[in-house]
Amino acid sequence: MTKGDSTMIKLNQCADKINKFINELLTPGRLGVLYEAASHLIKAGGKRLRPYIVMKSCELVGGDVEASVPFAAAFEFLHNFTLIHDDIMDNDNFRRGVPTVHSQWGLNVAIASGDFLFAKSYEAMTKHSRDMPCSSVKACIERLTDSAIAICEGQILDTTFPDLIEVTEKDYFSMIGGKTAALFKACAEVGAIVGGGDQKEIEYLGGYAWNAGMTFQLVDDYLGAISDEETLGKPVGSDIREGKKTLFIVHALNEASPDEREKIKSVLGVQNASTSDLEEAYKLLIDLGSLDYSQRCAEGYAEEARTMLASFPESEAKKDLTDLIDFFIERTY
Amino acid sequence: MTKGDSTMIKLNQCADKINKFINELLTPGRLGVLYEAASHLIKAGGKRLRPYIVMKSCELVGGDVEASVPFAAAFEFLHNFTLIHDDIMDNDNFRRGVPTVHSQWGLNVAIASGDFLFAKSYEAMTKHSRDMPCSSVKACIERLTDSAIAICEGQILDTTFPDLIEVTEKDYFSMIGGKTAALFKACAEVGAIVGGGDQKEIEYLGGYAWNAGMTFQLVDDYLGAISDEETLGKPVGSDIREGKKTLFIVHALNEASPDEREKIKSVLGVQNASTSDLEEAYKLLIDLGSLDYSQRCAEGYAEEARTMLASFPESEAKKDLTDLIDFFIERTY
Repeated sequence: MTKGDSTMIKLNQCADKINKFINELLTPGRLGVLYEAASHLIKAGGKRLRPYIVMKSCELVGGDVEASVPFAAAFEFLHNFTLIHDDIMDNDNFRRGVPTVHSQWGLNVAIASGDFLFAKSYEAMTKHSRDMPCSSVKACIERLTDSAIAICEGQILDTTFPDLIEVTEKDYFSMIGGKTAALFKACAEVGAIVGGGDQKEIEYLGGYAWNAGMTFQLVDDYLGAISDEETLGKPVGSDIREGKKTLFIVHALNEASPDEREKIKSVLGVQNASTSDLEEAYKLLIDLGSLDYSQRCAEGYAEEARTMLASFPESEAKKDLTDLIDFFIERTY
Repeated sequence: MTKGDSTMIKLNQCADKINKFINELLTPGRLGVLYEAASHLIKAGGKRLRPYIVMKSCELVGGDVEASVPFAAAFEFLHNFTLIHDDIMDNDNFRRGVPTVHSQWGLNVAIASGDFLFAKSYEAMTKHSRDMPCSSVKACIERLTDSAIAICEGQILDTTFPDLIEVTEKDYFSMIGGKTAALFKACAEVGAIVGGGDQKEIEYLGGYAWNAGMTFQLVDDYLGAISDEETLGKPVGSDIREGKKTLFIVHALNEASPDEREKIKSVLGVQNASTSDLEEAYKLLIDLGSLDYSQRCAEGYAEEARTMLASFPESEAKKDLTDLIDFFIERTY
């Protein structure tokens, strides 16, 4: 069994608990369509990475993991709310192998069911906090809210970037910081708060998860560019054709000579770019060292994430959170 | 000075405080467009009815009105979030005399800035709750969340009603209960909680405001049908042409004979219905007693709202909340 397999098993164990709780909270009443639409992507899959970080952070500081389940589910609700609205914004028709919410139910139901999941994340935290001190609940809600605001800012950055050509690395890191890392950070902080961790533990776990989120997103971005057609289900170079804002492309555009820039620009975001032109651009990106650079950046964040865990005594939860970083770096899809 | 004028003066006094707080919380940072889009409708006008109910409820139970300002602002954020998303769903291009957010900035910015305001409503409640007991803050957040969920359910009812022809009165009342009254109720409850009201006061004020919300929406619905062109800025009968779900129309469809139903159906939601056909249908609705019925319903909820205030001792705040009901009933635009 590889380390990756072991992380998958642990992820699945947490996912079972989360799914059970989510099913209870999303039991359809008379408004069947709202609940179906809201739970559509949740049921279609997903690794429940964010709940896993909440639960493992709670465990690491010696807390009661069961008590963290509603808080973990809150972040899965928040995450799925952003997926539903993101799919509208990106005009994506498929996710996790199923039609996106707006393609199946239309724009109006998709907007409302996203909003509904957002509200449900707060419901999970307030109505299912059992006998937790209300000061902790309030602190968790602040974290959830901060991460939601960061996500909206990240979305706006993504959607209003002037033109991919002009995106700087700094813009790119701001965007994924908001869209991904801020949420991971909030997950770990909330897990630590629920588990009764002290200020320093909350801070270190937050730092761990922020770096884990950056690692995850960087890998996600370059995997989208380099995976072969079979693994990815779409042709090599699709990200270039779609003009996706990845570090892989941003770096290449910054490093390229004027001639090379023109070559990349000629296929970037061009839906009907020919396969041979695409392959040529792809090769150019590799030659410019953009894949190496993305991988080095991901490894850098991974190392920082591991460092943040160093001060915690050895434990199973610490090992699980360390393994998660390796899982992010080593995954191939 | 009429009673209506006096209510407008009081509304404006509260609005000044709310606007000052909102401006501070929506000061644009580097993401100017997000803040501009989010504050666009807020700046374009609105009477700040919901904040007024929060603040007056706080005052009625003897609380510190200044402490209620962030909580009042939270509901204005929530309200404006729903307006932005509603305008997308209804495909409306103008509101409060300005282009709607999605017509000015496009769908993506409109979705994200609505989400952003939703998050900001929680931020207002958590980060600006000063030294309020955290149990009260938690209770307020629960109310905010419940009302947000009710709004999503109301939106879904509105957007997925099979066909206006088949809408029952019960459906109609469920819809406006979720879309309007639930939010008014939460406003009063939160005001009472912030003001330190006891369980009974919170309950009665909630009951008052729920009925106030029903009154407000019923009047809004029939005003949209009967106001003359000059007041409304669109031709008499536009609501019929747009197929808007109002009690005025729902009642008529239920009361009409088969022949009359056909006559109404021939113009209902028909964009290019002729003015003479529209006028004929409008006259039929009046003859069927649908306007009378809507007015009687509004008056019934208004009376119930007044009753809910009866147990409170006389005070300026009680008078203001009573006057607000008269203001709703008597307004003509």
